[in-house]
Amino acid sequence: MTDTGELLLNLLSPLLPAIADAAGENDRKGRFPAETFDALMAAGVLKATVPEEYGGLGVTNPHDVALALLHVAKADPSVALALHMQFSRGLTLAHDLREAPAATAQLMDGLLRLIGTKNAVITGAVAEAPGSTTVLQAEDGDGPLRLSGRKHFVTLAPAATHFVVSAQLHRAGRPPVAAAAVVPRDSHGLVVNDDWDGLGMRASGSVSVGFDGCRVPADAVQVRQAGDSDAALVGRTLSTVCMMGIYAGAAVAARDVAVAALRRRDLVAPSARSVVAEVEADLYALRSVGAAALTAIAAYLAEPAGAGQAMMGVFQRARVVTNRAAVAVVDACVSLVGGSAYNAAHPLARLYRDVRAGGLMQPYPGLAAIDYISEDVLTPT
Amino acid sequence: MTDTGELLLNLLSPLLPAIADAAGENDRKGRFPAETFDALMAAGVLKATVPEEYGGLGVTNPHDVALALLHVAKADPSVALALHMQFSRGLTLAHDLREAPAATAQLMDGLLRLIGTKNAVITGAVAEAPGSTTVLQAEDGDGPLRLSGRKHFVTLAPAATHFVVSAQLHRAGRPPVAAAAVVPRDSHGLVVNDDWDGLGMRASGSVSVGFDGCRVPADAVQVRQAGDSDAALVGRTLSTVCMMGIYAGAAVAARDVAVAALRRRDLVAPSARSVVAEVEADLYALRSVGAAALTAIAAYLAEPAGAGQAMMGVFQRARVVTNRAAVAVVDACVSLVGGSAYNAAHPLARLYRDVRAGGLMQPYPGLAAIDYISEDVLTPT
Amino acid sequence: MTDTGELLLNLLSPLLPAIADAAGENDRKGRFPAETFDALMAAGVLKATVPEEYGGLGVTNPHDVALALLHVAKADPSVALALHMQFSRGLTLAHDLREAPAATAQLMDGLLRLIGTKNAVITGAVAEAPGSTTVLQAEDGDGPLRLSGRKHFVTLAPAATHFVVSAQLHRAGRPPVAAAAVVPRDSHGLVVNDDWDGLGMRASGSVSVGFDGCRVPADAVQVRQAGDSDAALVGRTLSTVCMMGIYAGAAVAARDVAVAALRRRDLVAPSARSVVAEVEADLYALRSVGAAALTAIAAYLAEPAGAGQAMMGVFQRARVVTNRAAVAVVDACVSLVGGSAYNAAHPLARLYRDVRAGGLMQPYPGLAAIDYISEDVLTPT
Amino acid sequence: MTDTGELLLNLLSPLLPAIADAAGENDRKGRFPAETFDALMAAGVLKATVPEEYGGLGVTNPHDVALALLHVAKADPSVALALHMQFSRGLTLAHDLREAPAATAQLMDGLLRLIGTKNAVITGAVAEAPGSTTVLQAEDGDGPLRLSGRKHFVTLAPAATHFVVSAQLHRAGRPPVAAAAVVPRDSHGLVVNDDWDGLGMRASGSVSVGFDGCRVPADAVQVRQAGDSDAALVGRTLSTVCMMGIYAGAAVAARDVAVAALRRRDLVAPSARSVVAEVEADLYALRSVGAAALTAIAAYLAEPAGAGQAMMGVFQRARVVTNRAAVAVVDACVSLVGGSAYNAAHPLARLYRDVRAGGLMQPYPGLAAIDYISEDVLTPT
Repeated sequence: MTDTGELLLNLLSPLLPAIADAAGENDRKGRFPAETFDALMAAGVLKATVPEEYGGLGVTNPHDVALALLHVAKADPSVALALHMQFSRGLTLAHDLREAPAATAQLMDGLLRLIGTKNAVITGAVAEAPGSTTVLQAEDGDGPLRLSGRKHFVTLAPAATHFVVSAQLHRAGRPPVAAAAVVPRDSHGLVVNDDWDGLGMRASGSVSVGFDGCRVPADAVQVRQAGDSDAALVGRTLSTVCMMGIYAGAAVAARDVAVAALRRRDLVAPSARSVVAEVEADLYALRSVGAAALTAIAAYLAEPAGAGQAMMGVFQRARVVTNRAAVAVVDACVSLVGGSAYNAAHPLARLYRDVRAGGLMQPYPGLAAIDYISEDVLTPT
Repeated sequence: MTDTGELLLNLLSPLLPAIADAAGENDRKGRFPAETFDALMAAGVLKATVPEEYGGLGVTNPHDVALALLHVAKADPSVALALHMQFSRGLTLAHDLREAPAATAQLMDGLLRLIGTKNAVITGAVAEAPGSTTVLQAEDGDGPLRLSGRKHFVTLAPAATHFVVSAQLHRAGRPPVAAAAVVPRDSHGLVVNDDWDGLGMRASGSVSVGFDGCRVPADAVQVRQAGDSDAALVGRTLSTVCMMGIYAGAAVAARDVAVAALRRRDLVAPSARSVVAEVEADLYALRSVGAAALTAIAAYLAEPAGAGQAMMGVFQRARVVTNRAAVAVVDACVSLVGGSAYNAAHPLARLYRDVRAGGLMQPYPGLAAIDYISEDVLTPT
Repeated sequence: MTDTGELLLNLLSPLLPAIADAAGENDRKGRFPAETFDALMAAGVLKATVPEEYGGLGVTNPHDVALALLHVAKADPSVALALHMQFSRGLTLAHDLREAPAATAQLMDGLLRLIGTKNAVITGAVAEAPGSTTVLQAEDGDGPLRLSGRKHFVTLAPAATHFVVSAQLHRAGRPPVAAAAVVPRDSHGLVVNDDWDGLGMRASGSVSVGFDGCRVPADAVQVRQAGDSDAALVGRTLSTVCMMGIYAGAAVAARDVAVAALRRRDLVAPSARSVVAEVEADLYALRSVGAAALTAIAAYLAEPAGAGQAMMGVFQRARVVTNRAAVAVVDACVSLVGGSAYNAAHPLARLYRDVRAGGLMQPYPGLAAIDYISEDVLTPT
Repeated sequence: MTDTGELLLNLLSPLLPAIADAAGENDRKGRFPAETFDALMAAGVLKATVPEEYGGLGVTNPHDVALALLHVAKADPSVALALHMQFSRGLTLAHDLREAPAATAQLMDGLLRLIGTKNAVITGAVAEAPGSTTVLQAEDGDGPLRLSGRKHFVTLAPAATHFVVSAQLHRAGRPPVAAAAVVPRDSHGLVVNDDWDGLGMRASGSVSVGFDGCRVPADAVQVRQAGDSDAALVGRTLSTVCMMGIYAGAAVAARDVAVAALRRRDLVAPSARSVVAEVEADLYALRSVGAAALTAIAAYLAEPAGAGQAMMGVFQRARVVTNRAAVAVVDACVSLVGGSAYNAAHPLARLYRDVRAGGLMQPYPGLAAIDYISEDVLTPT
């Protein structure tokens, strides 16, 4: 962990007890804890990953970011997931800026400055709601474009001041291309719904957002690189890799609950002794792969371009191990604690649902990570 | 499946679509579906396991009962769990009756007749609420006893007309012994709380019940056999073994949802193909062990006494396989379906929570089944 | 188990101690135990699966056969594997006979009679040696054909009096088709090599056999059904399904060694207690799926044709569970016994290698069973 | 990897092809490859872990040593296991020297110098042969002691010039204590047997060695620290932790064989695609935990004493993950390659046996690592 990483942890630490205290009720109500994000803002945490020259803390190492998220997730994985949206925005903007063409650079530059000095909270809107295809329609000339569609799983949306919306860019006489539009929350036609109701991660504000002909100036649009280009792999890695810290944190939290329960027992049965050792081994594995992958990816980032496939390969291997081990740890902890963990109010009953999100998330959700890895290893380079 | 088993299935089948339709909302609200149990009563299902001579259907084979529960659980595992309380009551009463001393036989005889002819719904109250020790205090002479304490996880309680309450029997000048008291719901001092709020099985009505000096006539009390006696093992097996059908049903339901989703896809990825094959293999294992154990136990029941340890040994082995495979199947189905399964309203999001109850239930909850089996195999007979 | 199944067990039982005693040395030397097969012949075991009207014992139920093989495998899995070749020959010949056209029926009839009354030992030669394509070349007219090629993994070959050799049948002016030729061991041009050197199953005599222009009369040739026809699935199931008993037997043998070792210890560590319970659960699963699948397949066989896909579907699901559980059981037993199990002379060191054969065998070897099952479940019927 | 670690790799690299070429035949014959160790000696490899001031290469970082062993194990795990004995000797001697009392320091000093400048090959003899208790009997006065007993699993013994033999030290009028005696190979009464015949690791020369009244001068005896002292935990960690590299190497070798086989196929089945991804994830986990544990332990070693429990805790967690993942990887690779991997001559048939040694080795062999970890986590410090 670097010094700036430690600085971030020091800012976070005083806020964690309150986050942990509120976790149960926010989960039950499926409520986004706006006051928590106010406090994170006040403490300067929300600009942590913005470079210092833009007014941020300069926490640019993904390993530092993942460790910070691990600590937040020990208190509440939902908050960590929402916070991750803002953290990863800073990381990707700062990275992309290095190699961006002038037009795009100006856009990124502006966003970083907004986070660093203007309390902006920026989240991404990527996943299409069922049946939607979000389109960015260009008019003739340099006039503003129109954005229409509906996104869901827009984590952190309740607190967001801006949305980076992926869309198909339609321009007269040209084939559609992938693009991203930066849209302020107060745009006419933009509606943030209050409809998140997940199995877990219920306080993450992963609502749907509608766009009904929102005006987007041309200089707020960035054409995206092809989905499987090396640069796209870098961007996708950087915007998601730190989430491994979240699931590690959920697993550590579950383990702490279970071990405390066992230590209160007069006698720990042989079965429980074996299972707690398995939990420790799984935790060691997930923390080791996370640290290894994040360290490797930080090193790749320092190199010249071209390491996208290597980064993603490492990430997906580590991620498969992390998600499985985290789910296995929480499940084992439920067994260790027994029936009382099956009460909805028990922390393990929440963690059991929260931790299951890991395998379902971008990039390569569900089982797609397996297909990515097999393709990676079987395709000779 | 025997003919009476098939008869039971025929009574159940018309009710299953409505049970399935209501499952989602009852889960969300944590609501016990009283109307479902009214319908089961009207159809004669609630007296299924009572011998014909007492007015029941005479479904006495545990394998038949488990298969019926499997079908109910495909519609809603919560309903199956609550129904199981009534089903197992009939089974154990009919079995115990065969070898009971006269005094106890009269009690059992009466209960069977109540179920068979008077629409009685009887559930058991076994698990002590935190901090409670339920005591049955005998007065001098043959007068009524007093029952005080608090039980939780009293599944089916909202519909119960009678409770069979396990308690410590305190008699002057004698050491306390384990006993069971039969207490009608309208007893003075008995309160059925509306406090069930589980991770899953939320429609099972597994509330707490308080007993504040309830009067219990002496002939409504049965002294229990020592906890590890062979007869106690028989009783414990018979009162819980059919639950394997519930978790098998939850797994089958999850599989059906996932396979239907895959069949709608134009292309099924290699990873998903492999996982669906694993699901099929796990399902085959859990259905086979359930059938094997239930068939073996039915055979042991037909023999003279003394097979309690053999029955329980078979049951616990089968149960460990069943619970793990059922959890693994539902988890794999979540991965197969992907992100949409993480919406609280998705059937898999409910099954994911429901199925986790299996390993936590009586007898030998949590990891205790593992300790039971190791003791069973390492202790030479 | 049927009465004839029990009769077979009674014939086998006196021979098992000697088979067990010789297992270690035969494994070490990779030696086929000809004397064992002489004794099995003398006891009438080798004609067990031939119908009584052909001079056999009439053990036609696959479940009986698998149970017999389980007992042999407890003594030595290699002997069980070789014996399986002869057992399955009787089963498939008797079954095929029922629906065979006249010409083929005569051939089968003759083979059954040879086993039932003439001490014939018949094995199949299916797998091509690397680089070989075995061809059956028809001359003009009705004269004899010529068989050339090289097969490997021809288990039981050292004791075989006849080989049923799968080959491509080449006839002038017609496209090649799959066929099987029955070739007596003393045919000119047939060489049984002494070249079996497996990781395990070292006493099974799974050598290679060469055919250099062997003369085969036309009435010793059977044209085979298309590989994926329903009838072909029936035949393939029947000729391999009883092998599940072999791997169950290997697992039971390992468990017996490990439990005996644990019972000799003054203190069994918690870790070992948990693992021995897992072993018991795995054993219960593998025995249950084997019994369920074999019983189901016996029932399908009694029905009219058309159940090939159903039979194979059940078999492959059961087989995946069996092979994995058997490997897991033996591996766990090695851990339970510890370092001494790593000596080549220890029974577990042999079983560890023998049991690994299961997943690699016909039909659908390696991982192909997984692909078969996924295809089976995803292809709507 | 440090610079001296890289230097060691450079010395090793030219020797690896010959080691790989000989692996198959040495395995088959159970033959210790003396010529390989001659070549390692000639290249200076056998003094790698001796500090430079004693004439060695100064490779003192366990991570470097484990990586070197990984590369050797890719060629032949047996050679790596034998080489490990010599490597760990240098590590432990150099470490112990730092804190040893004067008398012991002189002994260690001498041994290091023997390795660094006199071509000594030193192995440890720890495990008692069945029925043996090795005793070091002190005479009156300062005269030589007498060593008697029999050790087995004395890896590298065929090439050893000296043995460090653990024994009970019996002194008149004092209770027996644990001690270690340094015994040159040419001692009268010492016999190196040629009796190693393992399931795997067959070229490691893990023979038994007999001691029949061997004379041992008093200054060649070191009294050992109590078995569970912190210093003892440090010593035990340092003498075994680098073995993780061996099992990682075996797994990597298996993966390379399987991936090469898959790449030669025209079509890779869905099942195989999934399994190869699992292999990659397992490999990533085992390499990450190994690197994490070895790095942590190197850091602990640089600290003042007292970190023994922390070191061992990390090591055992990492080791459980490593051994399981390595076994799983090789097993999966057998499935990927299929039947041909079941030939004794196939590299995977050897690796399948070699890799299974990992879980059975010191310290905490068999399942004892699980018990160690549960004790470690449940005992509050």
